[in-house]
Amino acid sequence: MASPASGTAVVGQAGGPTVVINQSLVGVIQETQKCSHIKRLLGARHGVRGIINEQFYDLMRQPNNMLELVAQTPAAALGSTRDKPDVAYCERIFDVFRKQDVRYFFYIGGNDSAQTAQVVNKLAADAKYELRVIHIPKTIDNDLLVTDHCPGYGSAAKFVASAFIGDDLDNRALKGVKINILMGRHAGFLTAASILARQRPDDGPHLVYLPERPFSIEQFCSDVERMYQQFGRCLVAISEGIADKEGIPWAQKVVVEMKKGAMEIDDHGNVPLSAGAGSLADYLCAMVKANCKSIKRLRADTYGYLQRSFPSCTSEVDAWEARLVGQMAVIYSLDADQDGSVALVRLPSTTYSVGTRLVALQEVAPERAPFTKAVPDDYINEAGNNVLNSFRDYAGPLVGELPKVGWFEQVSQKQVG
Amino acid sequence: MASPASGTAVVGQAGGPTVVINQSLVGVIQETQKCSHIKRLLGARHGVRGIINEQFYDLMRQPNNMLELVAQTPAAALGSTRDKPDVAYCERIFDVFRKQDVRYFFYIGGNDSAQTAQVVNKLAADAKYELRVIHIPKTIDNDLLVTDHCPGYGSAAKFVASAFIGDDLDNRALKGVKINILMGRHAGFLTAASILARQRPDDGPHLVYLPERPFSIEQFCSDVERMYQQFGRCLVAISEGIADKEGIPWAQKVVVEMKKGAMEIDDHGNVPLSAGAGSLADYLCAMVKANCKSIKRLRADTYGYLQRSFPSCTSEVDAWEARLVGQMAVIYSLDADQDGSVALVRLPSTTYSVGTRLVALQEVAPERAPFTKAVPDDYINEAGNNVLNSFRDYAGPLVGELPKVGWFEQVSQKQVG
Repeated sequence: MASPASGTAVVGQAGGPTVVINQSLVGVIQETQKCSHIKRLLGARHGVRGIINEQFYDLMRQPNNMLELVAQTPAAALGSTRDKPDVAYCERIFDVFRKQDVRYFFYIGGNDSAQTAQVVNKLAADAKYELRVIHIPKTIDNDLLVTDHCPGYGSAAKFVASAFIGDDLDNRALKGVKINILMGRHAGFLTAASILARQRPDDGPHLVYLPERPFSIEQFCSDVERMYQQFGRCLVAISEGIADKEGIPWAQKVVVEMKKGAMEIDDHGNVPLSAGAGSLADYLCAMVKANCKSIKRLRADTYGYLQRSFPSCTSEVDAWEARLVGQMAVIYSLDADQDGSVALVRLPSTTYSVGTRLVALQEVAPERAPFTKAVPDDYINEAGNNVLNSFRDYAGPLVGELPKVGWFEQVSQKQVG
Repeated sequence: MASPASGTAVVGQAGGPTVVINQSLVGVIQETQKCSHIKRLLGARHGVRGIINEQFYDLMRQPNNMLELVAQTPAAALGSTRDKPDVAYCERIFDVFRKQDVRYFFYIGGNDSAQTAQVVNKLAADAKYELRVIHIPKTIDNDLLVTDHCPGYGSAAKFVASAFIGDDLDNRALKGVKINILMGRHAGFLTAASILARQRPDDGPHLVYLPERPFSIEQFCSDVERMYQQFGRCLVAISEGIADKEGIPWAQKVVVEMKKGAMEIDDHGNVPLSAGAGSLADYLCAMVKANCKSIKRLRADTYGYLQRSFPSCTSEVDAWEARLVGQMAVIYSLDADQDGSVALVRLPSTTYSVGTRLVALQEVAPERAPFTKAVPDDYINEAGNNVLNSFRDYAGPLVGELPKVGWFEQVSQKQVG
């Protein structure tokens, strides 16, 4: 094994933040402090954007009590970016790396970040410049390839499951139909986590729609009506990414409908695509109201950014694993003669436990589809309107303990009258 | 002082649930168990609806460990109702009370519930039937008259403030404009609580709009653009109840716009009023996009029902006070020769402390406006687009500790380059 190059390391954060992405960052910082091969650790402000602009934090000099506070803080403490560098952009990154004598690059992000890491890595290899590139996974969508699951997912899933516990109780207290739109454009893992809320046989969500299956308004209305007949109420979890059978997202279809109407708001008819989420919820409510005349009380919510940013609902396992992948990135940079992405491996065991391994960057950011992971078919029911209990075995340990609730057993009038 | 009548008590829950309304219920149950004047405690299922249908839980026989679990459970464990009884409905309630020998009625709810309590009380007085009626306040809106604040508000405010801490960090990480719509149709207390999230001078929310002031789209867009120029980003808190200067709610105006367009969804052109909330967020986003060309990244969320139902964000003070008002209702039923509503009184003290007093039902549910409390003028800035720091003194103690966050001090390129 070659001894590692001595020099500067850069760490950055990219993409949509999570509540544990700073755990990974602090994992990198603390592990770096223990290692002799990294002389200086620079934190790129707003990811690759901070690299090309040479805007860095000096992360070697931060006191440990402050680091622990940063670790438990949601969102990206270095700032994040949506920049998706092309080759020219990657060349600018590499130029700065040379100038600053950067020998290690730790990039915390999704598959776009793994892709960037890969391109920069290749530039360095072509130039025979010694550079180690380690990608550290994060995403609440849980859709990265290879890794068993992604840091960030467990906490977002805990938020969703907790929220559904409260929402189901609310829906019991004041009966009706409640529709919740959840994050997940292509993968339904976060929406599927709503089933962790179920404790009693009649607990919601009673229907769960993932982007992995085509969504039909007719089927949806008929499903809702059936559940409403059965339970006197109906709680629904729907991914924001649901699409029709041609693959056109419903959020987009609703925007198109809006464009036709009075919400056409500028000369070019531009309505932001993000406009779809809140309106999708309202649209689905309106559809149920129009098609299910027996249902009087209808509400819809879009959980939105709270799923990735709410500060007091972190999964302990998720926080620990996010720290772990950060630490392991530094350890791999020392020991292994390769670049790559840190993957979590679920170990065969009666109780939940994980290990990590370093996988090639192209496995996480391949040239050809599939680029991301979908919820496996095994977890989705045949009708495509629910998630099976087997999903609990997968997601439950990542979320950890959920709020405990109590209720009165039903007592008939005769018993008390 | 007359010795209290011996007999059955009924307790019920009404209106929108909160995360601590079951604390009040358990306060009533536990205190009743200590008192000899109440022989039997019936829990009305779904409030007054359960009374007229004679659907009750027997609450004397519930074990204490289960009661403690119920107390920490969000939403109404007895079920809630939106029924607003007229006199005929109240007569049916009174008929059941006579039939079941009910001598005590504890009703946990907002001002509608106080109104119902008042009518039933009068029926009993007219019939010379001995009935003690005690209203126990709850509402996340915090808009009940007389009481310093309402049980339920502190926890909802804690949810909002916590959410804004996370959302502000997210908005720092990926800069842009973020608009959050919060509950509160007529009173802006919950929206005002968003300012508790601020820790650093440039923390959001940067703009706060309450229903207590007219809302103009032009002024709003100009405010957002100015803040965006100043901070490079802008986080906004807006009450769902904002109205134009004629008093027409914007949520309703958006629905009207939708009706004109493609969302006209049934033969009668009915769109549910609740459709407005999610769409209002999207509409405001679209307006900013149309009017502020320099702003590229825009997002909006509607916090929705999570504000009143999220299970793991309860304010300790709020939980304690909700329990207290339930307990005190039973104690007042024993000691005082009057019916009424339990009010919280803030005591003059260097540290926060409260007492309770029983006030007349007509003070909480008066015949003439104002029927509810608004955010006092003193807390709103002159431009009507922000809440002053003095509001922290009022709301801070009700919310209690908020999540702690950490950050890196900014380091210039030169220092590290």
